[in-house]
Amino acid sequence: MTLAPDTALAGLDDFTIEVPSWAYGNSGTRFKVFHTAGVPRNPFEKISDAAQVNAVTGLAPRVSLHIPWDKVDDYGALATHAKELGVSIGAINSNLFQEEDYKLGSLTHVDERIRAKAVQHHLDCIAIMRETGSRDLKIWLPDGTNYAGQDSLRERQERLADSLRQIYAAMDDDQRLLLEYKFFEPYFYAMDIPDWGTSLVHCQALGERAQVVLDTGHHAPGTNIEFIVMQLQRVGKLGAFDFNSRYYADDDLVVGSADPFQLFRILDQIVDVSGHLPSSGINFMLDQCHNIEEKIPGQIRSVLNVEQALAKALLVDREALAAAARAGDVLGANAVLMDAYDTDVRGVLADRREARGLPRDPMAAYAASGYGQRIAEERVGGTQASWGS
Amino acid sequence: MTLAPDTALAGLDDFTIEVPSWAYGNSGTRFKVFHTAGVPRNPFEKISDAAQVNAVTGLAPRVSLHIPWDKVDDYGALATHAKELGVSIGAINSNLFQEEDYKLGSLTHVDERIRAKAVQHHLDCIAIMRETGSRDLKIWLPDGTNYAGQDSLRERQERLADSLRQIYAAMDDDQRLLLEYKFFEPYFYAMDIPDWGTSLVHCQALGERAQVVLDTGHHAPGTNIEFIVMQLQRVGKLGAFDFNSRYYADDDLVVGSADPFQLFRILDQIVDVSGHLPSSGINFMLDQCHNIEEKIPGQIRSVLNVEQALAKALLVDREALAAAARAGDVLGANAVLMDAYDTDVRGVLADRREARGLPRDPMAAYAASGYGQRIAEERVGGTQASWGS
Amino acid sequence: MTLAPDTALAGLDDFTIEVPSWAYGNSGTRFKVFHTAGVPRNPFEKISDAAQVNAVTGLAPRVSLHIPWDKVDDYGALATHAKELGVSIGAINSNLFQEEDYKLGSLTHVDERIRAKAVQHHLDCIAIMRETGSRDLKIWLPDGTNYAGQDSLRERQERLADSLRQIYAAMDDDQRLLLEYKFFEPYFYAMDIPDWGTSLVHCQALGERAQVVLDTGHHAPGTNIEFIVMQLQRVGKLGAFDFNSRYYADDDLVVGSADPFQLFRILDQIVDVSGHLPSSGINFMLDQCHNIEEKIPGQIRSVLNVEQALAKALLVDREALAAAARAGDVLGANAVLMDAYDTDVRGVLADRREARGLPRDPMAAYAASGYGQRIAEERVGGTQASWGS
Amino acid sequence: MTLAPDTALAGLDDFTIEVPSWAYGNSGTRFKVFHTAGVPRNPFEKISDAAQVNAVTGLAPRVSLHIPWDKVDDYGALATHAKELGVSIGAINSNLFQEEDYKLGSLTHVDERIRAKAVQHHLDCIAIMRETGSRDLKIWLPDGTNYAGQDSLRERQERLADSLRQIYAAMDDDQRLLLEYKFFEPYFYAMDIPDWGTSLVHCQALGERAQVVLDTGHHAPGTNIEFIVMQLQRVGKLGAFDFNSRYYADDDLVVGSADPFQLFRILDQIVDVSGHLPSSGINFMLDQCHNIEEKIPGQIRSVLNVEQALAKALLVDREALAAAARAGDVLGANAVLMDAYDTDVRGVLADRREARGLPRDPMAAYAASGYGQRIAEERVGGTQASWGS
Repeated sequence: MTLAPDTALAGLDDFTIEVPSWAYGNSGTRFKVFHTAGVPRNPFEKISDAAQVNAVTGLAPRVSLHIPWDKVDDYGALATHAKELGVSIGAINSNLFQEEDYKLGSLTHVDERIRAKAVQHHLDCIAIMRETGSRDLKIWLPDGTNYAGQDSLRERQERLADSLRQIYAAMDDDQRLLLEYKFFEPYFYAMDIPDWGTSLVHCQALGERAQVVLDTGHHAPGTNIEFIVMQLQRVGKLGAFDFNSRYYADDDLVVGSADPFQLFRILDQIVDVSGHLPSSGINFMLDQCHNIEEKIPGQIRSVLNVEQALAKALLVDREALAAAARAGDVLGANAVLMDAYDTDVRGVLADRREARGLPRDPMAAYAASGYGQRIAEERVGGTQASWGS
Repeated sequence: MTLAPDTALAGLDDFTIEVPSWAYGNSGTRFKVFHTAGVPRNPFEKISDAAQVNAVTGLAPRVSLHIPWDKVDDYGALATHAKELGVSIGAINSNLFQEEDYKLGSLTHVDERIRAKAVQHHLDCIAIMRETGSRDLKIWLPDGTNYAGQDSLRERQERLADSLRQIYAAMDDDQRLLLEYKFFEPYFYAMDIPDWGTSLVHCQALGERAQVVLDTGHHAPGTNIEFIVMQLQRVGKLGAFDFNSRYYADDDLVVGSADPFQLFRILDQIVDVSGHLPSSGINFMLDQCHNIEEKIPGQIRSVLNVEQALAKALLVDREALAAAARAGDVLGANAVLMDAYDTDVRGVLADRREARGLPRDPMAAYAASGYGQRIAEERVGGTQASWGS
Repeated sequence: MTLAPDTALAGLDDFTIEVPSWAYGNSGTRFKVFHTAGVPRNPFEKISDAAQVNAVTGLAPRVSLHIPWDKVDDYGALATHAKELGVSIGAINSNLFQEEDYKLGSLTHVDERIRAKAVQHHLDCIAIMRETGSRDLKIWLPDGTNYAGQDSLRERQERLADSLRQIYAAMDDDQRLLLEYKFFEPYFYAMDIPDWGTSLVHCQALGERAQVVLDTGHHAPGTNIEFIVMQLQRVGKLGAFDFNSRYYADDDLVVGSADPFQLFRILDQIVDVSGHLPSSGINFMLDQCHNIEEKIPGQIRSVLNVEQALAKALLVDREALAAAARAGDVLGANAVLMDAYDTDVRGVLADRREARGLPRDPMAAYAASGYGQRIAEERVGGTQASWGS
Repeated sequence: MTLAPDTALAGLDDFTIEVPSWAYGNSGTRFKVFHTAGVPRNPFEKISDAAQVNAVTGLAPRVSLHIPWDKVDDYGALATHAKELGVSIGAINSNLFQEEDYKLGSLTHVDERIRAKAVQHHLDCIAIMRETGSRDLKIWLPDGTNYAGQDSLRERQERLADSLRQIYAAMDDDQRLLLEYKFFEPYFYAMDIPDWGTSLVHCQALGERAQVVLDTGHHAPGTNIEFIVMQLQRVGKLGAFDFNSRYYADDDLVVGSADPFQLFRILDQIVDVSGHLPSSGINFMLDQCHNIEEKIPGQIRSVLNVEQALAKALLVDREALAAAARAGDVLGANAVLMDAYDTDVRGVLADRREARGLPRDPMAAYAASGYGQRIAEERVGGTQASWGS
């Protein structure tokens, strides 16, 4: 009752996933950042690691940068380094959470000098976009308040709108502003962009090249994420994903590890309107932490999980699904979907990889490559990259 | 550190709360609807009960109707009955959940004949609005699906949009369409209007006279409701409240009973932009169930709880609040808000009631009136009103 | 990396699932109970329907009864009817939520006469157990309060403990008391047995033959259910499951439909200590509602989903898992588990069914049997079974 | 309808709150730890700051230590320092989350050498207890797993039980082991002590001097915390509180700031069985972070919030409450509780402070003391205390 893999999986041909440079550095919780041998000390080493993911999967040809973590003197050299390794620079992520000035807000701060500083940081990011050829400026606004009354919720919105307008005005016509929302953390009373509705309202005010980023870990418990995926596509405002997994909060676990069926349902909504094709403009990115597991294998596993879920979604017999829905056959329609989900696509995906000259088993291929041991031995001295630095 | 009650509480002078006719009938859970002596058997008796709430509080001069529960042959007679008791007919609520035809949807149903039936029900409601002088058509869409794949989430949105367009087109220029959202129940995979964002998107598509209804029990756990109140006011789309309380889901308890501080915070956002004044157009309604407690006293308590929370919000020293926020004084700003919340306003509210010729203690006054015993004795025979009938 | 199905799946040989008589009647939400043609009018018809599930799956040889819904004059005749259809009577479920007397509590009620009535109901259930040969008395306590202060939380516990002691004392040595917990509903401030800890405390006080029932829909959002499964097995107090699915609350959907990976993880904890074998004494029951889908197919699908998840759990290579854990190989250990989960076991399960003389595709076999149409035609007149009657 | 404050508030006379040494250092989220001028550089300075809280409130005569953050060469000198400032050393908190060795567990680790190290850390803490006269060893176990299959949930429990047995065996007869539970963080698949039931099971196995710590921020969304307070008191196992506030997760905000009514309900359960009296043995502690607000004022505000909630709980007319419950008067019973909650007790508490020679307004008194400016000026150089150091 599923489609023939041969034709259905052709939809995978042009599908790519963007990996984040910060996934290769150390990360952790507020309690502890554990260290791992071989972690990169600079953006060049991060891109080298990211290139390993693409080398064994063929799925991850772009690397997101995070500024200032990935600041370098010569972005051309960084882009060239990437190109030599078979990857390119993806979205530029701004950082609004690590300056002492931003304790009470950045783009929303009551003090216009601090807002101006936060706006200027984005102008710097836009300059880097021009240098690297990046088309996406991704803004996650970490602003919020911890106590009721601490600041005017309303005025923070107006200040945010004003700051965003300045940033948007500075962008080129072929650049997008991607605006992320988050339910909570690092503030615990009210985030200034807590939900997709708020992100949408700001993007509507900005214009066509402003779109929403959906991070799968940034919702209230129980939220039906695939519904939001559907709705944002419907109104033409789904710009990008930050994929990861969560059981509780923004756990940032390996995508597909906590609820693989949810990941499948999300990609089913994507496939339903051909959102997986490059023409959709949706940037499928990872945003994860590998606190306790190995980082490069963690990324490889993640892109494979997304590919697997997408492959299953491509197998859904949409005509049968529509027919069952028309007939009011609740269990029948659900069964059509589950048939695709229950299918083991690992073999056919390995076949596809092999046909493209890639290893059948990317995890094993990476392990066998010796890269992990090599960097553990070579990367001695210096400061390991992490969120805090 | 709070404002002077004498002047600050003048903001209460024109504030009113609308009560729902169905609160006076029996209600319950899927497990059991308990029966109570004296429960109304028809819309006229419901309005008589509702009028008691207004008689002792002076706060509740309107009664929402629910069609078909409140269908009568002569709406003019019902309106006259209300008027004689000092109240008037408020919003008209449509019902999309009690027809066998609506098992798989109403305004979203895959079968256009069932959608047409659901649309026609609203045309009937609009006719009743004209007969009763009601200006608000309130639509809570109970549609949704229980299983992934059961129906196309996207096509249900398009069908919904089309149905709403037909309803909106049939309305008069002085009538509003109020569109409610709900996180879950009575469907458990995906509601078709699960969040304020979806409600907003549809209201934007309809036009100026379409606005969002915020039911305080219809959100995911942990949702910051006052933020949504702020945002909907900011974009000019907050049409009405359905007040009630919840600990878990849509518990529909007496408003202010589960989290009185949250109710205060909501009303603080309202007062912040003068939303409590009639000019705002926001209809402050109750939507509650009194499953185990007495119904009329339950309603009296509810309107008093809203009044108490609003009074506290009016006492907030907004200049001091703004000054503390400007100074970055986190604890100081919070303290300004808490000063108002911690104030016991019951005495001053009793004084205000007395000054208006109302009982100082509405709960005691109702108990002393003997109305409860009287209806328990008189309303024998007939079928008690409840959701199911 | 998974075990050989041939030997591993032998663990399925003696595994059975108990189905609830009430799943075949109508059910719904507080908003609406939809009707379905062919629904049973009496316990004999319910058992006939349940027997269909066993006939096509071979997995469901017992039917739970619910008293008073399944009260009959002659339980011997009912047991014989079951036996003739290849099934037997399972657990007896008491009902503490449908009497007007129980509005403010049953086994916890402040009035000792009402507590005595609730205790007596269980003595009646115990008598029925003796008549039907049932060994399990299942108590779900729906008691709770809606408002803080409504009643003493502590005294309700003491009254509950006293009521349970009386019931337990009346039971035979080969009968078990199974005590269920539930997070919320039908009360919304505090349930009197809201969590496994409370159920455990009462079972500890009662004695060895008192054990906990875990209903998969009765937890707070985000709760790790398999952890509770592990812990209850560890302390020797896991008596039974009530399987179903939920996205939000106690949604009572088809088990495995909302989060199939969670169901697998639960059964993985079971298999880890051989809890799936009859010697464990764990009664694997369904407790579901089929509000909008067909009921008998809904039950067939459910038992197949449990079987599928158990089969995958049996495939887990526990030696490899333990080795990876010992080595601190986080991704490797997770991969061992996922290998089993990602395996498509539908074919091998169909082979097993065929080998036992059962249909390869039970859903198709039931559809082809014509039973559904037959009961729709024959069961005309009478009152359809449902929760409310 | 509330009790007379004069007599009722006598229950406050012997009530004390313990403050945590780490509240005076810097804290933050995984994204950023902001710095504040004047933050202590060592345990002596932390105790000096904590003593300010007691000086202006008279409520906080004990300070919890955290080892190794509060390691000093001479604990006698630290105790003397505290005594000179009018406070004493309270509970000793162990730390199981900041060693690289504990990445995959501490008391639960698969490697017995790491478990031995974690056990030894507690033996060191017990030695410090003897030196400081502390009676409470508080263990928050941060252990857990991030991925299903990562380690055996069951074996981790057995290893934990074994480790705890060793620690408990090393304790003196007048020392207690206080065992805390936490829903999630810093691990995101399964915490090894996620709920009160698990903590209870381990305390039962250890013996009488093992009791549960309830941290108000460590529960699933919607959990009724006062029910757990009641149940733990009922079974004689409530050893201590870690008070704080949360909207979402373990937000660690100022206690009473997020849901003051919940704090009141918790203390109402305490007062109901005289748990606020020293004879109960319950240690009422704070465990908070002051990420963005001033730390000493944050602590002052916190102890005042607890005092205010306790005062309101003491005002509850428990006879009237019981009478209403006996009469089945749902709204009446709730009203008795709300009468106490709605009372503004700030004036009477200020009177009590004044009568004891304390400032009427502790926040203002602290601000006026100049202490904050003094430490900001004096504490220059050195490393500010924080979680990470």
